[in-house]
Amino acid sequence: MKLYTWGRAPNPRRVLIFIAEKGIEIPVEDTGEGAALKGEFLDAGPHRLVPMLELDDGTRIGEAMAICRYLEATHPEPNLFGSTPVELATIEMWERKCEAEGILAAGEAFRNAVPFMVDRGLPGYSVAIPQIPELIERGRVRFTEFARKLDAQLAKHEFIAGDRFTVADITALCAVDFAEKARLELPTDTERLHAWRARVCARPSTQV
Amino acid sequence: MKLYTWGRAPNPRRVLIFIAEKGIEIPVEDTGEGAALKGEFLDAGPHRLVPMLELDDGTRIGEAMAICRYLEATHPEPNLFGSTPVELATIEMWERKCEAEGILAAGEAFRNAVPFMVDRGLPGYSVAIPQIPELIERGRVRFTEFARKLDAQLAKHEFIAGDRFTVADITALCAVDFAEKARLELPTDTERLHAWRARVCARPSTQV
Repeated sequence: MKLYTWGRAPNPRRVLIFIAEKGIEIPVEDTGEGAALKGEFLDAGPHRLVPMLELDDGTRIGEAMAICRYLEATHPEPNLFGSTPVELATIEMWERKCEAEGILAAGEAFRNAVPFMVDRGLPGYSVAIPQIPELIERGRVRFTEFARKLDAQLAKHEFIAGDRFTVADITALCAVDFAEKARLELPTDTERLHAWRARVCARPSTQV
Repeated sequence: MKLYTWGRAPNPRRVLIFIAEKGIEIPVEDTGEGAALKGEFLDAGPHRLVPMLELDDGTRIGEAMAICRYLEATHPEPNLFGSTPVELATIEMWERKCEAEGILAAGEAFRNAVPFMVDRGLPGYSVAIPQIPELIERGRVRFTEFARKLDAQLAKHEFIAGDRFTVADITALCAVDFAEKARLELPTDTERLHAWRARVCARPSTQV
């Protein structure tokens, strides 16, 4: 088994934190070579993205949450995806929100702004995806709304999907930390979100 | 229990097909009122989107796949999310790809083009999200790549995530059908994808 990553990118980081929470040891290969993924990695398919988990029989599992789901099934403790039907669904709802409204918004602001992402406005494509400057502002607006939504949720619960740490907190933290690279600051009045971030950052797993 | 939907929108449709495959009866309320979701629905939170499943105790589960995950846990047969760790992960990988590269791409081409979506370039926001015309072309490019990726996968398997019908097929079909509304055609040379679509459209569940 081997996990392919790329530097400090947010999606591989979701898996690295998950692995650390589970206490699993998995060999990691960083596919970085300058700014691009290596050709031999891309050619092996089926998706041109990291993270990618390669099993011993060659099966490749892409998408951060698909990899985490595999590891949850093979290493059930500590539980990070939920146990009861309502908990499973609530965690999935918040995790998907943190991806769609957090990580994707920060990615929009980042990839459409930085010079080394010219024609790579989205990850995972073999064709050119031109940058669209208007997405920098759209990403900023979305990320601010996301931060306010999390802050409101944290008025009711200690963690993003309820009263314990779950995979939703992992995605939320990776979104917030990634947003800083895109120069998106958390609104200063989201005090509960700032406090949550400090709590989560104190966990040894999040030091990756 | 009640499921909130909105007309023929693709994300509620994912849940409606899932419910039909499971053979579950759930009361449905269409929140449509002209072009906007009703205020009392939006105010009840936590997310301003359909589909939303409201349980008898008032718990609200949003996000199509979170709702389906809840229903899979409460109605395990027929299995649509996978059983073994590898199958669970493979189905989740393809389902997420079909959402991120299919439904989101078609949505980009649709919402940034049509006059009644002015300032609603993305769903689920209470603030204005201006349309960005460049996203129409980006959505078209992405959807074409998506169609070719599915066609290549269907050279190896009868269905999107393997050799049986799963939730990944549901999301893929909703993406392809929605894309038509955004005037995105399947490339004519994706013959396996066309044949898969005909197979899946023959299922009674997909008539919704």
